[in-house]
Amino acid sequence: MFDLKAYLKVKQQAVNTALRKLWDDTEPYPSLLVQAMRYSLEAGGKRMRPILCIAATEAVGASEADVMPAACALELIHTYSLIHDDLPAMDDDYLRRGKPTCHKAFNEAAAILAGDALQTAAFEVLADARQHQGGDPLKWLEVVHLIARAAGYSGMVQGQMIDISSEGKGITLEELEMLHRLKTGALIEASVRAGAILGGGNFHEVAALGAYGRHIGLAFQVADDILNVEGTPEILGKPVGSDRDLQKATFPSLMGLQKAKLHARELIDTALGELRIFGKKGKPLAALGRYIVERKR
Amino acid sequence: MFDLKAYLKVKQQAVNTALRKLWDDTEPYPSLLVQAMRYSLEAGGKRMRPILCIAATEAVGASEADVMPAACALELIHTYSLIHDDLPAMDDDYLRRGKPTCHKAFNEAAAILAGDALQTAAFEVLADARQHQGGDPLKWLEVVHLIARAAGYSGMVQGQMIDISSEGKGITLEELEMLHRLKTGALIEASVRAGAILGGGNFHEVAALGAYGRHIGLAFQVADDILNVEGTPEILGKPVGSDRDLQKATFPSLMGLQKAKLHARELIDTALGELRIFGKKGKPLAALGRYIVERKR
Repeated sequence: MFDLKAYLKVKQQAVNTALRKLWDDTEPYPSLLVQAMRYSLEAGGKRMRPILCIAATEAVGASEADVMPAACALELIHTYSLIHDDLPAMDDDYLRRGKPTCHKAFNEAAAILAGDALQTAAFEVLADARQHQGGDPLKWLEVVHLIARAAGYSGMVQGQMIDISSEGKGITLEELEMLHRLKTGALIEASVRAGAILGGGNFHEVAALGAYGRHIGLAFQVADDILNVEGTPEILGKPVGSDRDLQKATFPSLMGLQKAKLHARELIDTALGELRIFGKKGKPLAALGRYIVERKR
Repeated sequence: MFDLKAYLKVKQQAVNTALRKLWDDTEPYPSLLVQAMRYSLEAGGKRMRPILCIAATEAVGASEADVMPAACALELIHTYSLIHDDLPAMDDDYLRRGKPTCHKAFNEAAAILAGDALQTAAFEVLADARQHQGGDPLKWLEVVHLIARAAGYSGMVQGQMIDISSEGKGITLEELEMLHRLKTGALIEASVRAGAILGGGNFHEVAALGAYGRHIGLAFQVADDILNVEGTPEILGKPVGSDRDLQKATFPSLMGLQKAKLHARELIDTALGELRIFGKKGKPLAALGRYIVERKR
């Protein structure tokens, strides 16, 4: 029986250690900017994207150390997107993971700039030549491209733009699914693909893991919508029903709660099917997939 | 006699053509996000950073085509920084290059996201594998790293953070210089360095061009401060004295106008001294340096 809880704990610690090391050289007097960046980076994220990246690289037979810069970069990009999503001009959220959002803890300008600099830092980490001694620079360039595509105007940022533009407007289930495939799905898929590519996976392995990532990415959002209906503020770290307050379309609101749960389950089953070719090495990814729909926060 | 005006025109056209090609595939129906990105990108920028990058690569004997992706990436990053700098939470500017700023022409959320996506696009362009067939991927990775460092928490964004934090506070000339070395100098130096590295410049050539870039970067800002005192709104495309209204320290306010002019001239002279080893091939960079202090907008 694979112990996911222990796996997550070990990997979270490894990722957190690597993330902390990024700013060791600016200690003991970090600038206000770096303080704001670290505030959000260390606010208790689950490190889901880095762990997916690491688990994917392990599935193709490589190890954590081979992909750690990519794992860190993915978390930096995810954190920047959360800071900007929470801004007054966007979702105007004041709590994130049970703590004041970056613009509440600092100020709006600092939050915009902390997000900007976290995004830049992601690409700085990916391209840091010291990390690549012995590695294949062409693969790292491919991963820079992959992550940039997933994070930008044809991925995450496009999804956020559609999301805020569609508030209060009726959208269809197909439009909602497209929105989330862009807003969260693209970066999750890129996380898995990056791990597979850097780990030396062959064409079929990268394709299978890409498909796995695409399905769990959407399942993650469906599960998130369900949690936003069923959770409590203590567990969620944010007000329950905040999506509803903004008149946002969600999977439960468009499909009904039971059908949304079924949809999440089906997506995960399809994702797990892609893992067959990896045998035992796919176990962490399978457990992560199941966790995504079964988690309580 | 080197004809800078003709040189600038030819290079601007080449850069504009390359920038327009980046979004050809999203035509004929660009998303609102891409519209906002292109609005600012096509608002009449001088393409100073791309042209410096190209001129540097020509100084070491390579050609425009070898560095065009880097030239585009530099303009994408510069444009993103202008959009975010103009936001209400930052400088709250409503005019840029004579046109409404991005958040005025669209809205605040669209402007934040357009800036975010322009930054991502810069790294996407740099890493685009199709551009590197035949090129050395390690050099491109080095340039990703160089540009990310110059644009992020130890460069441009840090400079902007210090700039807004010091509004209305007295700062010294040394602090003002540090601020501008970060806010505008770092990316200008990176533009020149990127051209030198990708063009195959040797260690001494890259170092000399780096020093040239560092000096003209600061001279550019001193000249900008002088223009903000002496210009007219028609020429500047923004209200005259807007820096003074925000109680921002400037080189003229701390040194006096005449000393500031002398300072700019001295910086340019030092920069031009670095070009000696390039002989005739350094002429465009020399003319660009002179233009920076003599321009009227």
